[in-house]
Amino acid sequence: MKHHPARLIAKKRDGGALSVDELQDLVAGVVDGTLGDAQLGAFLMSVCCNGMTPEETATLTLAMRDSGCVLNHDHIKKKKIDKHSTGGVGDKVSLLLAPLLAAAGVAVPMVSGRGLGHTGGTIDKLASIPGYSTDMSLERFGEVLDQCGYAMLSPSGEIAPADRRMYSTRDISGTVESIPLITSSILSKKLAEGIDGLVMDVKFGRASFMREEHDAVALMEGLVATGRAAGIQMSALLTDMDHPLGLAIGNALEVLEVLAALDGECPDDLRELTLALGVEMLLLADAAPDADTARATLTRLWDDGVVRQVFRDNLELQGGDVRVLDDPSLLGRAPHVVPVEAMRSGFVTDVDPLALGHVVVDLGGGRRQPNDQVDPHVGIVLRKVLGDEVHTGDVIAFVHASTDLAARDSAHAVMLAMPIGDERVRRRALVKQRLA
Amino acid sequence: MKHHPARLIAKKRDGGALSVDELQDLVAGVVDGTLGDAQLGAFLMSVCCNGMTPEETATLTLAMRDSGCVLNHDHIKKKKIDKHSTGGVGDKVSLLLAPLLAAAGVAVPMVSGRGLGHTGGTIDKLASIPGYSTDMSLERFGEVLDQCGYAMLSPSGEIAPADRRMYSTRDISGTVESIPLITSSILSKKLAEGIDGLVMDVKFGRASFMREEHDAVALMEGLVATGRAAGIQMSALLTDMDHPLGLAIGNALEVLEVLAALDGECPDDLRELTLALGVEMLLLADAAPDADTARATLTRLWDDGVVRQVFRDNLELQGGDVRVLDDPSLLGRAPHVVPVEAMRSGFVTDVDPLALGHVVVDLGGGRRQPNDQVDPHVGIVLRKVLGDEVHTGDVIAFVHASTDLAARDSAHAVMLAMPIGDERVRRRALVKQRLA
Repeated sequence: MKHHPARLIAKKRDGGALSVDELQDLVAGVVDGTLGDAQLGAFLMSVCCNGMTPEETATLTLAMRDSGCVLNHDHIKKKKIDKHSTGGVGDKVSLLLAPLLAAAGVAVPMVSGRGLGHTGGTIDKLASIPGYSTDMSLERFGEVLDQCGYAMLSPSGEIAPADRRMYSTRDISGTVESIPLITSSILSKKLAEGIDGLVMDVKFGRASFMREEHDAVALMEGLVATGRAAGIQMSALLTDMDHPLGLAIGNALEVLEVLAALDGECPDDLRELTLALGVEMLLLADAAPDADTARATLTRLWDDGVVRQVFRDNLELQGGDVRVLDDPSLLGRAPHVVPVEAMRSGFVTDVDPLALGHVVVDLGGGRRQPNDQVDPHVGIVLRKVLGDEVHTGDVIAFVHASTDLAARDSAHAVMLAMPIGDERVRRRALVKQRLA
Repeated sequence: MKHHPARLIAKKRDGGALSVDELQDLVAGVVDGTLGDAQLGAFLMSVCCNGMTPEETATLTLAMRDSGCVLNHDHIKKKKIDKHSTGGVGDKVSLLLAPLLAAAGVAVPMVSGRGLGHTGGTIDKLASIPGYSTDMSLERFGEVLDQCGYAMLSPSGEIAPADRRMYSTRDISGTVESIPLITSSILSKKLAEGIDGLVMDVKFGRASFMREEHDAVALMEGLVATGRAAGIQMSALLTDMDHPLGLAIGNALEVLEVLAALDGECPDDLRELTLALGVEMLLLADAAPDADTARATLTRLWDDGVVRQVFRDNLELQGGDVRVLDDPSLLGRAPHVVPVEAMRSGFVTDVDPLALGHVVVDLGGGRRQPNDQVDPHVGIVLRKVLGDEVHTGDVIAFVHASTDLAARDSAHAVMLAMPIGDERVRRRALVKQRLA
């Protein structure tokens, strides 16, 4: 580093704004290690406590993007648009959205994350499809994108390596919850994809990063402003993560739900959110004159089976077993599947997504630590959702587990996460706000 | 650690107060390494940004004290009283104060620091006396204390090891300037000395840790409250560090000034501060009924040569060459001594202690990094102080250097640090405030 690390850190500690030169130097120090662990921890905490100006956040984001490869898909003449969600439980939207937009003529170069904690990751879900690989060269990634309209890549050391070190340091040092740090982490990787536009799905509610709506709104505004400052088109939806999305939670179980959705059998909330985000992407791509037309186009492509065909093309290009489309049982199944039954009659008054997310982690379907292995088959499939009427003995969910003991423990936890009462509760609106 | 480090850190990040159990666990993690560098950096920054309650500061201090050996001098029936200064330029008070109080019947077990940056360290000054050693076992330290009334020890891994790691981490991570962290660092080591009371010399002004008076007052209040909460008697003086103390700056040069002072030749400010702090120590030890009696006792012991004899006893016990008392030239001398001359007539309108401190570091007499070697002989001796009248060509200071080039560069810097103008400026009061 050119600057004295302690002096840069002290400047942020005292509430100062760091210059472009200073932030670039810090990121250089993150990558080459001349900024030590204690210094990085102190810097990250100083940002947590004192925030950053919009200019600082944009500069940090660009410096982190430029710490690794920045893709260029100029050989593809389509608009390149991606979607990113801040993470939730049961959120398999990307698996449907990428082929949906590809079917509509948009290129979707998607570098996705692995799950950590109670939130699932797109890469883990895809990995439950026999043969499917998200590990490939950046060159191959561009080819797949060109050939089928979308491509799914695991994060690698080539993309935003500064974020890699910063993210793992934040995870252990109590410095995760900071809007400038979350913003720069997300956008540095997304900007490296070589996209023209990005739609953010910013969740709020119990199973989201930002539980409080006002925090989520602040994050949404920060993301949109920073993305635009970095030169790409941005829009965002603020969406509810106070309940799971769809009925399946767990990697292969969510893929099963996606396969059914491609065939037209899709839970309402999953279809609604997929279309809402798809409309935003199509509008960013200038591929539809207005939201209604965009929605009509996407609905037709989905219902006519075009999306299913694009999904199949991508499976083939990324090594997945295309037979799963016709025989989903090829995904495999956990050895122990036990029902969770209603202990009384009434209405489902809550479906706690955080509790269910933790159950899936406990079953082995998620990660406590970044290097944990995940079991693709375990998870939960809901039979009832918020507000449904149930009678004593009705099955409200199934638990898929690797051992009988785990299945029974988890069934008990699921029961507690889905209390039954006398009042019929209605779910709040899925899309709360739009920023475009 | 019993607790999840990131959760403890996040609690402080969000402004919460950590419990006794949590702080003890953190300090245990500092010592056994289960709190990693990034986590320690983040924790220290969270304290810088959000502070600590008085209870947290006291708990942290005690946990840090108890991370290593805590001395017990119960076999010595005298009161055990120490003094600690927050650091300045030209401050050789400890070298006079320890024998002065020992002469008055107080035991002074002094674990001192080495200099870092522009501030000198007592250990470095003593090390310039041929043969003198401050490295000894804790048992021997107790013996020397018993035999001559005071003992001088270098900090070792046995005393407050938690502070050792925290201090070096703070130094590189921009987390030095925090009242709870400064307080716990100072007091954890001092409390481990096994003392009954402590007098703090809290400096304010340009060459001090706390430049602003209100910051220094806050530190003074925190130190006194925390020391008392930890069960020892405390008093403090707020003293001026806007100008150097005495005339000599540099290790052996300061010892020379001390040797002259023992013989009765002492700059007014050095004598005044030494007596003021000595009075506080004697009062804490219940060894004098009031300040006037205390001052009279100390003055008599000094003027009668009793202090000189105690200094000689200590030299002998700690391996120093006692002949330096009669032949100070045995301390050695830098090969190049050049005068700094007044370029015009007038009055000395400033003596910038920070600039002079940096000159001494540049000459090799201080440390930029904790492991730097220091040259004992280099430094500056002032011939004129603030407000003195000078004529063109008068010598205002001497620079002692290891090379002719360094001498001439430094002489120029000293000239700039001692501007001469038309107005006679008076130095502000040396002791600004007392807290007892």
